[in-house]
Amino acid sequence: MTMEILKAFEPLFYPKSLAVIGASSDVTKFGNIILNALMEIGFEGKIYPVNTEGGEINGLKAYRSLQDITGEVDFAVLTIPAPAVKDSLEECRRKQVKGVEILTSGFKETGTPEGWHLEQQIAGFARRGMRILGPNCFGVYCPESGLTILPGQNFSRQTGPVGFLSQSGGLCADLGQMAKGLGIRFSKMVSYGNGCDVAACDLLEYFFADPKTRIIAGYLEGVEDGPRFLKILRENKGKKPVILWKAGLTETGSRAVMSHTGSLSGAAGVWNSGLKQAGVVQVGTAEELIDSIYAFLYLPPNAGPRVALMGGGGAIGVAASDSLDRLKLSVPVFSPPILEKLKASFPPVGNSLKNPVDLGNPMIPPSMLRKVMEAAGEDEGIDTLIVIQILFYILYQVRHRLGMDDKPLSQFSFQPELLEACREVQERYRKAIILVMPDIVTDGKMIDLEIEWRRERDNYQAAGFPVFKSLDRAARALSQFVIYHQQLQA
Amino acid sequence: MTMEILKAFEPLFYPKSLAVIGASSDVTKFGNIILNALMEIGFEGKIYPVNTEGGEINGLKAYRSLQDITGEVDFAVLTIPAPAVKDSLEECRRKQVKGVEILTSGFKETGTPEGWHLEQQIAGFARRGMRILGPNCFGVYCPESGLTILPGQNFSRQTGPVGFLSQSGGLCADLGQMAKGLGIRFSKMVSYGNGCDVAACDLLEYFFADPKTRIIAGYLEGVEDGPRFLKILRENKGKKPVILWKAGLTETGSRAVMSHTGSLSGAAGVWNSGLKQAGVVQVGTAEELIDSIYAFLYLPPNAGPRVALMGGGGAIGVAASDSLDRLKLSVPVFSPPILEKLKASFPPVGNSLKNPVDLGNPMIPPSMLRKVMEAAGEDEGIDTLIVIQILFYILYQVRHRLGMDDKPLSQFSFQPELLEACREVQERYRKAIILVMPDIVTDGKMIDLEIEWRRERDNYQAAGFPVFKSLDRAARALSQFVIYHQQLQA
Repeated sequence: MTMEILKAFEPLFYPKSLAVIGASSDVTKFGNIILNALMEIGFEGKIYPVNTEGGEINGLKAYRSLQDITGEVDFAVLTIPAPAVKDSLEECRRKQVKGVEILTSGFKETGTPEGWHLEQQIAGFARRGMRILGPNCFGVYCPESGLTILPGQNFSRQTGPVGFLSQSGGLCADLGQMAKGLGIRFSKMVSYGNGCDVAACDLLEYFFADPKTRIIAGYLEGVEDGPRFLKILRENKGKKPVILWKAGLTETGSRAVMSHTGSLSGAAGVWNSGLKQAGVVQVGTAEELIDSIYAFLYLPPNAGPRVALMGGGGAIGVAASDSLDRLKLSVPVFSPPILEKLKASFPPVGNSLKNPVDLGNPMIPPSMLRKVMEAAGEDEGIDTLIVIQILFYILYQVRHRLGMDDKPLSQFSFQPELLEACREVQERYRKAIILVMPDIVTDGKMIDLEIEWRRERDNYQAAGFPVFKSLDRAARALSQFVIYHQQLQA
Repeated sequence: MTMEILKAFEPLFYPKSLAVIGASSDVTKFGNIILNALMEIGFEGKIYPVNTEGGEINGLKAYRSLQDITGEVDFAVLTIPAPAVKDSLEECRRKQVKGVEILTSGFKETGTPEGWHLEQQIAGFARRGMRILGPNCFGVYCPESGLTILPGQNFSRQTGPVGFLSQSGGLCADLGQMAKGLGIRFSKMVSYGNGCDVAACDLLEYFFADPKTRIIAGYLEGVEDGPRFLKILRENKGKKPVILWKAGLTETGSRAVMSHTGSLSGAAGVWNSGLKQAGVVQVGTAEELIDSIYAFLYLPPNAGPRVALMGGGGAIGVAASDSLDRLKLSVPVFSPPILEKLKASFPPVGNSLKNPVDLGNPMIPPSMLRKVMEAAGEDEGIDTLIVIQILFYILYQVRHRLGMDDKPLSQFSFQPELLEACREVQERYRKAIILVMPDIVTDGKMIDLEIEWRRERDNYQAAGFPVFKSLDRAARALSQFVIYHQQLQA
């Protein structure tokens, strides 16, 4: 069964040759953008541009028709007007093309009888030896084979464990950019639009079967077969985490779904309880989606709900405590022996040591934070450490006070020492450590802090530690991770 | 009454001379950081460092005691250990210092009888001709006179309409940085810590009286006199918008409040209904706080709940519709004549024109967006326009396709034309226009997009248009603004 599923998707994900039908030399046309993207990301097979004019596009010979191509064509990308799609599919069938993605819109999503009829016609081809993606989509990104979606020419060529399915192409385009700097890498990302053939259920089955996919995430507006969809999820519960954004669950959103992908979005109550029973991590915004994927990628399985929060600046302690409490995470007071040990290491004034730990100084030496990290590591009542590097912009002050404003901020960073502490504490106590580095500087002239922020984030990530821009986001992502694991045990 | 209130605060906000008691040449000490900050921001009066050693600090003559200073001293900043504060205040009294801010911690917030006792002693001085701020605070930022808080040496010297009061100094430090690039400027920002004398009620009265303050915002953990606080708010309801973050309303948060400023945070229900009755805009995170201040600063009073949403990429339309619906904002279908006009301007395929308007192209020419903006401007069923510049990173592709990767992104920006359209549509129809520019690129190597983002944001802001990083944030801020105005009319 697994082998069959994988086999069925091979033409869509691992073609050896492809044709771009509707290829254009006009740089504003989809037929140029997608051809260019596939060339630029470095698709590893043969690429054939096809259009009625022939000639040459982007340095490649263009063919007037599929039949003019002498070699085999496994896969076709269609970017021609909707009324021409049917004939083109007929041509694909004759050429024995096994996978097709149709970027063209003007089908079911128009809400017209003509659109609906056109879509019915093309769907018919799927039952004649061809898998179809779309119409009204941005296509497939598969870094392993070098396929990419519409505006995805600068996506990473690294393969990773995340399988993503989406009715929206724009979200795929966004997610690829969001993922890049976060070390999130994909096995496949599939924008399937109206889903006339391949749709949510098939893709879910594929990702469960695919050995290269370890985390499944998706954006859905409607599903072709709700009961089957939930059944697949339930049957695979616990095998791989599934993170879903089911949009269109409000009245206004449901109207927007209708004219976006022509789907029916369904009742909120039914969806929410169905997804919960199936152990799905449900998210409601792009930020939550990426943060949850990020958490599942970086957190060890024992990252639990009992959090030790440490940093300096009490408002962050209070606000953080509020955030965690609302998300059913706890901030337990350290056990008495641990607290005594901490009290012995810090002056009694200006520090609050009970957890949340507020070291009350805008410039906290990493050696101080390390002591708190070790205490939290040792305390059996704590599962997860959240280390807040407050007032990150204090680096400016440090540099300025040393009279070295022309030097890069990285020279004044506390990070190497703190990263070393994170490594050693994790090595010894095997608990999850999450970094929060609020980067709240908005000034156009202070861009070098953003540069330094990303550099430090990359260093933490390379060592396996997740970094969030705010405590709220970190807490929400941790909470999703914890709930998922609690549901599996329930 | 108003004059009296303003007069009473003059020594704290507009001193002509000040002493830093506990000034230090050790750059890691508060006594050095605050002295340096006051010098660097350019305090306009005389500055006297005072410490037991004398000598010279930061190029200024240091005095061994206040009595050694020949001129008058209006204001004193105390950064000496808690047990020494009482004697120092006695010396201030003899020198006829009229305003004091005590940065020192080690008082009520320690939760010990000694701390409580020390705080009682210093509070006594407030009733002997002296106003005291703190202890356990970061002080006052008043750009007009050049006073600044602890790590606030690079705060703006421009005065503005926002008055901010906070029990947390760290939040003041953050807010000053967040505000800088957003064009948010302050009349005064006051970190009052434990509030042994001047606290929330007094500051609220001051900001209502102060002609330079037009928007009041604050972060509170507990309030010295809840009924008086709510009474002041109710009596001034509608005079100036008040945005408050009342923290510590959860169990965990309330425990953290206790050890931060030694306050009692109070019951959530009482606070929520009391603030609502008083017409206060209540927020729960730093992000919401800054976004609400931003909205009240940039939005015209007629910014209403009936939104026209426009951009390209349907998922954003659907997700946006969901967000707005949850926040009780509406996305009404355009009126029939307007919709007909729009349909005449756009091809029927690939565009969804009903509102939300999805132009379905990653590179939307501003001339197309302008048509939709004009339609929304004309439609009497629409109050507010939200324009989403999706796939902002498409600028990379545009530049790359033109073979000009070495040129700055600004040369390829769609912005000048879109800004012109915003200006003209607002000039003609007088409706609120909000920009959303999702900047979702995380890659360390793509920092130039962040530079371009801030540049474009600054241009919109300079023309009076607010810019948000996500639709969710824009919608939440608009919703707060709308609810505030609806409550005034109720």
